Amino acid sequence: MAYQEFMIEGRNAVIEAYRSGRTVDKLYVLDGCQDGPILTIKREAKKQNTLVRYVDRERLDQMSQTGKHQGVIAVAAAYEYAEVEDLLNLARQKGEDPFLILLDNIEDPHNLGAIIRTANLAGAHGVIIPKNRAAGLTATVARTSAGALNYTPVAKVTNLAKTIEDLKKEGLWFVCADMDGTEMYDLNLKGPIGLVIGSEGEGVGRLVKEKCDMTASIPMKGDIDSLNASVAAGILAYEVVRQRRRA
Amino acid sequence: MAYQEFMIEGRNAVIEAYRSGRTVDKLYVLDGCQDGPILTIKREAKKQNTLVRYVDRERLDQMSQTGKHQGVIAVAAAYEYAEVEDLLNLARQKGEDPFLILLDNIEDPHNLGAIIRTANLAGAHGVIIPKNRAAGLTATVARTSAGALNYTPVAKVTNLAKTIEDLKKEGLWFVCADMDGTEMYDLNLKGPIGLVIGSEGEGVGRLVKEKCDMTASIPMKGDIDSLNASVAAGILAYEVVRQRRRA
Repeated sequence: MAYQEFMIEGRNAVIEAYRSGRTVDKLYVLDGCQDGPILTIKREAKKQNTLVRYVDRERLDQMSQTGKHQGVIAVAAAYEYAEVEDLLNLARQKGEDPFLILLDNIEDPHNLGAIIRTANLAGAHGVIIPKNRAAGLTATVARTSAGALNYTPVAKVTNLAKTIEDLKKEGLWFVCADMDGTEMYDLNLKGPIGLVIGSEGEGVGRLVKEKCDMTASIPMKGDIDSLNASVAAGILAYEVVRQRRRA
Repeated sequence: MAYQEFMIEGRNAVIEAYRSGRTVDKLYVLDGCQDGPILTIKREAKKQNTLVRYVDRERLDQMSQTGKHQGVIAVAAAYEYAEVEDLLNLARQKGEDPFLILLDNIEDPHNLGAIIRTANLAGAHGVIIPKNRAAGLTATVARTSAGALNYTPVAKVTNLAKTIEDLKKEGLWFVCADMDGTEMYDLNLKGPIGLVIGSEGEGVGRLVKEKCDMTASIPMKGDIDSLNASVAAGILAYEVVRQRRRA
């Protein structure tokens, strides 16, 4: 993968990038900004010999891809995609049953970032996205992930259905989120598992759904159609957490 | 409350506004737009005698407050805040134990909208926000709620701690979300309940927290600090749903 520059925007995201050991090549800080988080960032920049430039708000606004730089933009090496094998290795290193989150048709970078954040905190070993019809690992994704992109590997695959087949041979079971499924509380979600989440409008694609062993639904008691995709992913991921905890 | 005009943007949000019986005063549609959702909206507009104006994209872009009008903007009466009593009445009408979601320091309209959406689907009887330091019921909130704002009442109160005291007299128990709390699975969240959610940075304020009967935490296994506020609200609300279901 060719080296690419990558912008990390916002205080939390930049602090997390430093904490995780990511190499920051350049740091742009709003001139005159002196509060706690900015001082923390400057200390880290000094430790790592990052080149620091003090610029005015206009310059930062121009550079910003997210419109939410909060006075600081770091330029770092691009986030690299992991291989599916790396995700399984991470589970092995931790001595845990693999827990992967697969996303089908999630094109909104805010949802992708929020799901990577949830995956990290729910103890998942990584996220798998398809090559086409997926958001890339952009600045918005990094920012919305609140730093989780530094820790939780994301793999990009050509064919999600094929990847599911391969992972079944490794002993994983697959559960697909779908409104017509069995209520998630009534399924056994323990053991090596892949949780497949689709978009709000379309859900999980037919070919991918057919490869799954189970279909899980979140009980819906309300008047509208569906939960936000990242909220649904969080609720399902934590049902896996709850069941694993009781194991 | 004085009458105010209010813009509803995006196809789903406008369709939901019609479905819920909201009066739409005026409808702006992108000229030449003829797809399914737009035709549905036009049919509803005809039924309700809504004044329809066909405009070009530039005009819609200018009017749009969210930047995501998807070719349609409806002008309706402003969303009105409910009274706390209305929320309790809704629970009584349904013959259910009250389930309320209280938000402290949630200032981001996307989070507020997503939480109203979750509240609707989790079967909560309403959302309570404090007068100061809360997002208002703006177009962004309506859009992010995916129509739930038409069904799920939102009450605005002067003093959240005082409201909690009053509601305790009605038999409600209050559980506050906090990282230092007991794991939510180990608490009894059945019966009449108020779930109190704080912002990602600051959590629930001290005065409000002190009024709560229990403190619930979501288990965190990852490397970063916290979940997105609307994801955390979803996970906690569905733990209430799960426990009520088993009751």
